[in-house]
Amino acid sequence: MRIIIDAFGGDNAPLAVLQGSRRAKDELGVDIVLSGDETRIREAAQQAGIQISDMEILHAPEVFDIHAQPTTILKEGKNTSMAVGLQALRDGKGDAIVCAGSTGGLVAGATFINKRIKGIKRPALAPILPTKKGPLMLMDAGANIDCRADMIVQFAIMGSVYMEKVKGIKNPRVGLLNVGAEETKGRELELQAYELLQKAPINFCGNIEAREMPEGNFDVVVSDGFSGNIALKLYEGMGAFMRDNIGDMFSGAGKISALLIYPRIKALRKRMDYKEHGGAVLMGISAPVIKAHGSSDGKAFFNAIRQARDCVEGGIISTISAHLETMKGV
Amino acid sequence: MRIIIDAFGGDNAPLAVLQGSRRAKDELGVDIVLSGDETRIREAAQQAGIQISDMEILHAPEVFDIHAQPTTILKEGKNTSMAVGLQALRDGKGDAIVCAGSTGGLVAGATFINKRIKGIKRPALAPILPTKKGPLMLMDAGANIDCRADMIVQFAIMGSVYMEKVKGIKNPRVGLLNVGAEETKGRELELQAYELLQKAPINFCGNIEAREMPEGNFDVVVSDGFSGNIALKLYEGMGAFMRDNIGDMFSGAGKISALLIYPRIKALRKRMDYKEHGGAVLMGISAPVIKAHGSSDGKAFFNAIRQARDCVEGGIISTISAHLETMKGV
Repeated sequence: MRIIIDAFGGDNAPLAVLQGSRRAKDELGVDIVLSGDETRIREAAQQAGIQISDMEILHAPEVFDIHAQPTTILKEGKNTSMAVGLQALRDGKGDAIVCAGSTGGLVAGATFINKRIKGIKRPALAPILPTKKGPLMLMDAGANIDCRADMIVQFAIMGSVYMEKVKGIKNPRVGLLNVGAEETKGRELELQAYELLQKAPINFCGNIEAREMPEGNFDVVVSDGFSGNIALKLYEGMGAFMRDNIGDMFSGAGKISALLIYPRIKALRKRMDYKEHGGAVLMGISAPVIKAHGSSDGKAFFNAIRQARDCVEGGIISTISAHLETMKGV
Repeated sequence: MRIIIDAFGGDNAPLAVLQGSRRAKDELGVDIVLSGDETRIREAAQQAGIQISDMEILHAPEVFDIHAQPTTILKEGKNTSMAVGLQALRDGKGDAIVCAGSTGGLVAGATFINKRIKGIKRPALAPILPTKKGPLMLMDAGANIDCRADMIVQFAIMGSVYMEKVKGIKNPRVGLLNVGAEETKGRELELQAYELLQKAPINFCGNIEAREMPEGNFDVVVSDGFSGNIALKLYEGMGAFMRDNIGDMFSGAGKISALLIYPRIKALRKRMDYKEHGGAVLMGISAPVIKAHGSSDGKAFFNAIRQARDCVEGGIISTISAHLETMKGV
């Protein structure tokens, strides 16, 4: 299996990318294809003492600017490491791609260069969030700020396939993000989506209020991309707030206290750390596309590559296609 | 000053209401008017040994059901403790009201029984959230699931008045909840609201991503009621998640560790506890209406009554009216 990685995406590129790639090659046995400026990649690897002779490099002289208009990836940005990586994926030079660069650029690039799965109306950004009990897939977390109800149903199908095939959760519980539990709650969008979700070939468990997300009683939460983005970012923000507060509590004179329960603090940090979960999947594209967090370090890239491998091994693209075929008859 | 309190709103009514009222009468010197079944109120007070002979009771034989259709408060529910309280407020028998009952019922009742401030298009639910630095007012947190841009501008004005008059914050910083910081971000609603907010007589500081809310760099965050509700509930849910995690960390063998930093744990709990901040204000109604949390205990009711007093003392209704007058010329 070959995983393509944008070597110049994210705040810590290319060093963190190289660290994660090295570990992935060694521990997961996947082949690594790095896209980016070859000279700069080789220099960075040499400086850090990272062996990359067993990795392929696809030369791409430019880097896609994080502030650039997303659709410029198609023309002005076609020689960037992100675009070259996506083109290579399209041309069969890899089975999946990992990128920590501009989310907008990646969504636009993947949609137009790699195309959507046949029948999928819109791709959705699907991060994995920690909860009290297990991982939760939220989608759409921001690829489409305006959504129709039929798109939300497709998100639910794609999310269910992912949680089953990649996370091994049988019959994943799907919830619709809403302002109340009753089926009469919400805007016209939620009312329509509720009705369609009930008929879809998924385990739809009704509306979920944002308050319940951390409880872990749902495996997939679907919403329009605006609401989902608010939820994702508050999840991240409150997680950081929590880590800071715990840090403050144990600073200075609290250090002795921290030593006593160090394993627990460590376990909690690990549970709340997005780096453990890889990245967000851009679901609905014809090949697995993993959007790693912009601040990813070597460990986060390693986990994102593992996630890409799991998507390929789980055959999520073909399973999604098969589900869509089934739905045609409904 | 006379504060009306729905004696039968919330999970812990009437006991918690009576506890909070007693403390408010003693410590704040406000007059208390309890609305609800007189016999049940007197029985509950006697059983708990709470002196209420210096409080007025407005007899209301029924209780508004939390699952009832909000607008039924106007006809079928007109003899409930909530409706009788709102009617008394309208008739000048009190200066403000505190209620922990159905949010929908309270919004509908206050809108039609007490009316909006002249010129205000929609009332908004405005809870106070804890942040790293100070209190943050979020509005609308769910009174209107669909909003227009001009409503959001009015929310911003009302929130600014509250934070200045009640919390003493000069020139409150207002942010528009959005999916990115740039002014080109968001749906049509946010694009329009951004433009109008720039021209409004407030200290508009641009878009705020949900991630930044806990940072405390904004005093007022405005949004439509659907997005605001998602943000509010996730804020609450993550706060509870955090309290549970901290609890787990210090359970069993962690107890010794907890003892060492007990004052810090206590301070953090206090900071994160919504009970400290009173309730959500239903802004835009012609008199202060405080929606206390459904699970309010005596302390939460006390704080909500204090908040009602602060709204009356701060003259927020007349200040909002004056601001709206100024805007007419713009």
